Amino acid sequence: MHILIIGAAGMVGRKLAQRLVADETLGGKTVDKLTLVDVVKPEPPAGYSGIVDARESDLSAAGEAKKLVAGRPDVIFHLAAIVSGEAELDFDKGYRINLDGTRYLFDAIRLAHNADGYKPRVVFTSSIAVVGAPLPFPIPDDFHLTPLTSYGTQKAICELLLSDYTRRGFFDGIGIRLPTICIRPGKPNKAASGFFSNILREPLVGQEAVLPVSEDVRHWHTSPRSAVGFLIHGATMDLDKVGPRRNLSMPGLSATVGEQIEALRRVAGDKAVALIRREPDEMIMKMVAGWAPGFEAKRARELGFTAETSFDEIIRVHIEDELGGKLP
Amino acid sequence: MHILIIGAAGMVGRKLAQRLVADETLGGKTVDKLTLVDVVKPEPPAGYSGIVDARESDLSAAGEAKKLVAGRPDVIFHLAAIVSGEAELDFDKGYRINLDGTRYLFDAIRLAHNADGYKPRVVFTSSIAVVGAPLPFPIPDDFHLTPLTSYGTQKAICELLLSDYTRRGFFDGIGIRLPTICIRPGKPNKAASGFFSNILREPLVGQEAVLPVSEDVRHWHTSPRSAVGFLIHGATMDLDKVGPRRNLSMPGLSATVGEQIEALRRVAGDKAVALIRREPDEMIMKMVAGWAPGFEAKRARELGFTAETSFDEIIRVHIEDELGGKLP
Repeated sequence: MHILIIGAAGMVGRKLAQRLVADETLGGKTVDKLTLVDVVKPEPPAGYSGIVDARESDLSAAGEAKKLVAGRPDVIFHLAAIVSGEAELDFDKGYRINLDGTRYLFDAIRLAHNADGYKPRVVFTSSIAVVGAPLPFPIPDDFHLTPLTSYGTQKAICELLLSDYTRRGFFDGIGIRLPTICIRPGKPNKAASGFFSNILREPLVGQEAVLPVSEDVRHWHTSPRSAVGFLIHGATMDLDKVGPRRNLSMPGLSATVGEQIEALRRVAGDKAVALIRREPDEMIMKMVAGWAPGFEAKRARELGFTAETSFDEIIRVHIEDELGGKLP
Repeated sequence: MHILIIGAAGMVGRKLAQRLVADETLGGKTVDKLTLVDVVKPEPPAGYSGIVDARESDLSAAGEAKKLVAGRPDVIFHLAAIVSGEAELDFDKGYRINLDGTRYLFDAIRLAHNADGYKPRVVFTSSIAVVGAPLPFPIPDDFHLTPLTSYGTQKAICELLLSDYTRRGFFDGIGIRLPTICIRPGKPNKAASGFFSNILREPLVGQEAVLPVSEDVRHWHTSPRSAVGFLIHGATMDLDKVGPRRNLSMPGLSATVGEQIEALRRVAGDKAVALIRREPDEMIMKMVAGWAPGFEAKRARELGFTAETSFDEIIRVHIEDELGGKLP
C-alpha cells in the first residue's frame, strides 16, 4: 500500500514514518511506498526497503494538492500546519496554510473521486485548541467549538470540512484532536506550551529548566508515542463504527504541573527536581489559563484509542524512545 | 447611518428593510442610507425618504465584496445564502456562495479595517442546521456543531470565522441562529420544511395543504416578525456583554405538528383543519427525523432576544402581517 504523509518533516511526522517502517505493514497490508512531503524536504526514514518519494511541497501553492493526489495514495496523513503562535502573528499565512491548504487537499481528493472513484482514508490532526475558556472539566465529547485563537478556528473549520467531505463520500476521514504532546523531544523552544516538556526533558539530562506558571496549572497531555498510536489506529480502525461525527477528542492524561514534578521526582530523584527554576511569566500564565484542563474522551476510548495513565509512564516513554532506555 | 443588507431580495431581507423604513432609526440613529443587494436587484422599500442604493451583485464574484464595503456601511446584515436543498445538490455552488462569499465579505472588511480603522457591526444569519441528529431536547447552548448537510457545514464554518474576525477586532460580529421560520408567506414551495408553514397558511385562506409527516414530529419555530426582531436586536445590543462566543441559538417555540394543528383549530376552526390532507412521504419523514426539536437558547434570552410563546401567537402574527388583520 501507498501512504502519503503531509507534514512529514515535523516531529510527529518523522515518528509516524519511523513507526510505519518498523511495522512494515499498516492494517495487515505491506507498506510498499511512502510519499513524504513537507515545506522542507523530509529525511527518508532509515532501514526502509520500500519506495520513498520525499518531496518539498507547499500544500497551499497552486496545483500542489493535485500532484500529491495524482499518485492515488491509499492512506493520507495530513499533519501539516503552522503552529498556533505563528498563525496568530501572521493572519494571512495561518488561513492560507492551515485552512486553504487543507481545503485544496480535500478538493483535490474530491475531484479525483469524481474522476475515477478514488476514495482514500484521510487522517487529519486537529487540536485541543478547538476549545477555549471558560471550559468545564472534564470537557465532554459534545462540548461546542469555542476556539480563542486563529489556529484553533482553522482546525475547527477543517474538522467540519472533513466531516462533510466524508459524509458526501469523497473520502473516508477521521479527525484526531491531539492533546499537548509531552515530552516533546529536542531543544527548548519559545512556544508558550514548551515548559510542560522543558521541566521534565531538561532535568532528566542534568540541565536547568524554567517553570513560568504555578504548580496548580492543570493541562492535557499525551506522549509522542501515543500520538503516533492514535494516527495508526485512525488509519486502520473500522470507521463505520464512528458514524458521521468524525472528529474525536483523543484520550490523554490530565495532570497539574505539581503532579508532573512529583513524577519526575519518582523517576529521577530530588536532584532532577532541583533543576527546575521558578520564574513566573504573567503573559504565559494568562494564556495557559484559557487552555483545556482535560477531556472526557469517552467516544475515543470506546473506539479503542489508548494513552498513558500516569506521568511516570510518560517520562518512561521518553527515556525509552529518546534516551536509549536509561538516564545519563 | 448607512445600512447594508446583503440578501435583501429574500423574504427576511425584504421584511428587515420594511421594518427599518417604518422605524426610521436603528439604535437611536436615523437611517439615512440603505444599500440593498442581492443576486436579483431588490425592490426599494415603499415610503422611504432616505437614499436607497439597490444593486444586483453576487458576493462570490471577484471584487464584489470590496465594492460593497467601499461605502463603509455602519451596519452590515449578511443574510445571503443558497438554501439547504440547493447546497446539497450543487456542492460547488454551495461552498462558493455560502462559504467563499461570506469569507470574501469578511476579508474585504478586514482589509478596510487595516486601511483606515473601519469597524462595522456585522449581523450574520446562521441556522439551526449547524446541528444534526442525534440531538438532546432541549439542545443546550454549549452543544457541539454536528451538521448533517453541506449547508449546515457552511453556516457552522462562517460562525467560526465570524467569531475569529471579531476576536481579532476587524469588525463587531454577531451570528443569529434562526429557527425555522413559520408561517413563511407566499406560495407553497418544495423545500422539505415547507409543510410546517403550508398546513397553516393555506387552510387560513380556505386552501388545501398536504401534511407529509406524523403529528408527533417536534420542531423549532419562530415568526418572520420575530426573525426580523432578532436581527434588529443583534444590530443594536451591547455586544461587549456577549463575549467571545458570538453565535447564539435564538429563542423560538418548540411544538409538535399536532400542537400546530390544534392552534389552527382555535384560531380558524374545524373547517380550516379539515383542509389538511395527510399524505405521508417517507423521504421527508426521514429528513425531518434529523432536525432540531428545540433549543434551550438560555444565553440569547438572557441577552434580550424574544420570540412567540404559543402557536396561536405565531398564527396571529401571520394574520396581522400578511392578511391585513383578519381571516377572509
